[in-house]
Amino acid sequence: MPRLLLDKDKCLRNIEKMARKASRNSLSFRPHCKTHQSAEIASWLRDFDISSLTVSSFLMARYFARAGWEDILVAFPFQPGELDHLVELSEHCKLSILVDSPAALPFLNHIPKQVDFYVDIDTGYGRTGVRAENPELIEQIISKAAANSKLKFRGFYCHAGHSYKASGQKQRNAIHQKALYDLGGLKKQFEHHNAKVLYGDTPSCSTQKEFGTIDELTPGNFFFYDLIQYSHGACNMKDIAVAMECPVAGRYPTGERILIHGGAIHFSKESLLLNGDSIFGQLVQGTDRGWTHTSQEKYLTSISQEHGVMEQCGDLIREVNIGDKLLFLPVHSCLTANLMREYYSLDGIPIATLNS
Amino acid sequence: MPRLLLDKDKCLRNIEKMARKASRNSLSFRPHCKTHQSAEIASWLRDFDISSLTVSSFLMARYFARAGWEDILVAFPFQPGELDHLVELSEHCKLSILVDSPAALPFLNHIPKQVDFYVDIDTGYGRTGVRAENPELIEQIISKAAANSKLKFRGFYCHAGHSYKASGQKQRNAIHQKALYDLGGLKKQFEHHNAKVLYGDTPSCSTQKEFGTIDELTPGNFFFYDLIQYSHGACNMKDIAVAMECPVAGRYPTGERILIHGGAIHFSKESLLLNGDSIFGQLVQGTDRGWTHTSQEKYLTSISQEHGVMEQCGDLIREVNIGDKLLFLPVHSCLTANLMREYYSLDGIPIATLNS
Repeated sequence: MPRLLLDKDKCLRNIEKMARKASRNSLSFRPHCKTHQSAEIASWLRDFDISSLTVSSFLMARYFARAGWEDILVAFPFQPGELDHLVELSEHCKLSILVDSPAALPFLNHIPKQVDFYVDIDTGYGRTGVRAENPELIEQIISKAAANSKLKFRGFYCHAGHSYKASGQKQRNAIHQKALYDLGGLKKQFEHHNAKVLYGDTPSCSTQKEFGTIDELTPGNFFFYDLIQYSHGACNMKDIAVAMECPVAGRYPTGERILIHGGAIHFSKESLLLNGDSIFGQLVQGTDRGWTHTSQEKYLTSISQEHGVMEQCGDLIREVNIGDKLLFLPVHSCLTANLMREYYSLDGIPIATLNS
Repeated sequence: MPRLLLDKDKCLRNIEKMARKASRNSLSFRPHCKTHQSAEIASWLRDFDISSLTVSSFLMARYFARAGWEDILVAFPFQPGELDHLVELSEHCKLSILVDSPAALPFLNHIPKQVDFYVDIDTGYGRTGVRAENPELIEQIISKAAANSKLKFRGFYCHAGHSYKASGQKQRNAIHQKALYDLGGLKKQFEHHNAKVLYGDTPSCSTQKEFGTIDELTPGNFFFYDLIQYSHGACNMKDIAVAMECPVAGRYPTGERILIHGGAIHFSKESLLLNGDSIFGQLVQGTDRGWTHTSQEKYLTSISQEHGVMEQCGDLIREVNIGDKLLFLPVHSCLTANLMREYYSLDGIPIATLNS
């Protein structure tokens, strides 16, 4: 069976580096735990004096609350179908939610405990949030919410996810600068509310040096990183903290093809375009303890449900036998980790997640 | 939370139609259960006198064996790492495996109970299997296996998965005809072994009328079908038996955009190219009982981990409110079903799977 290996040392270094960056910039740090979805990995944050988390669903919020976390932001626009979960969670922890429309507020009229909210701001990504150019709508939300004594406006949240679509660092910088400008403007305009600003996609948090008037960073993928992050210059190959271990199930000298057990239900179907071709993972070389990036680059070139195929393997096909285990860096570690549901330390110890 | 709804009537009709087609062509029928991974759904096969299953992993084989199935083919080239599972399973059921290399055979030298094997044949897909043009290698495998009295050669297995890459029915027909020709030739050449031929990707099984010397059909996706199958002409819209039910979490009149809770960890990242754009699901209209395809076609145009976005929704945005539930046909039901791990009947009753 394919397994997802986690190099704890790499993960700890990634956490430490981001925690230091936040600290150096006098920013709070509220890591997004959607990537790993693991209470054990979240517990490693305690050593860095981190006491608040970001998650992307009430399912995750409940899981981390049960693991003892008392300050959790659910970074997804609140939906009325989650009201029961919200009520339950607000009994046990300091719960924050996102709101991006006045229409969501009536559903929160009768909550029994205080819930904080941030207005989700869209600085150009175009996924969720009130457009930064629309402070009137923000004002409407805040005014309407003020009628509910249990609902506290705390500030703004922004995920500038269009950084993932940027064609290079120059464009990423422009996206970041616009976000800082927009969020700085809103912070000033709503300073009478003592509005805080939460921000943080992993590429921006990893590559940028200035954070303007931002108060808190909320990146998530940085725990593990992956090939997408590498392609954005957000990490080095050696920072990628997870690798899929997959058994070789077939060797096909014609076409220099190797088959592994490891497909779309393990890696996910996320792909990365490399010289015009889609790839689904990159081969790394196993070492005594973990893996190392090789200069001879080989990729998973196609996957189906359980099958992974490496084509044009060259000499590798003569070095590999059925039953050998190969290691691959994932394209998108969040999706791979979600599918794998359990990780293994380099000592072979299982690390549980929400999905275990 | 997003839910995967299963219209049992549609699923039963899909099963019945394929079972009848097999019967009409005097073919055995060994449905592939990787799509649904559900003992309950497999139990519906009993009414059609089906007593043998195909699966794609030993994990699935064990699950269905525990549910009482006694004749199971693991349609993935045997890997030595699965030997313990094979030994355990062979105690409890008639187990068949795939072999496509003599190198796999020594690992099976000391199995305690009989295991049947099929030689996996590649008629042009280029994923797994011995190339049909290489009967010498088949002969090598059969000869080498003959030394193991517990290992019984039963015939050939072929998944002509390149039918999914075909640009139209003409090309699909050619792929099918070549497979029939190749497999017919091998069957004749190895008739002294009384070799049976197992075959069946869903597009071919759904659209073809002639099956030559094939003995047994093994399609899987047909239980549910999906947008990919529809795009290949393998099903009608009304045959698609599953739909994702997703709450509306945001409305953004600028850009006529709707946000749903339903992302890559629910639908999978599988996409379909439609007029040059990737889509991740197609909106259908809920009815008193299930859903119906609408002529006004709307699509999920982008997804991230938890978020699904419909852009250019037109009038729909004025009809929809936060908290409403929308229904979407999945692009690739196997991957969606695997992620959702539990389905709901139209009466709201949970249907468990291997992953529940």
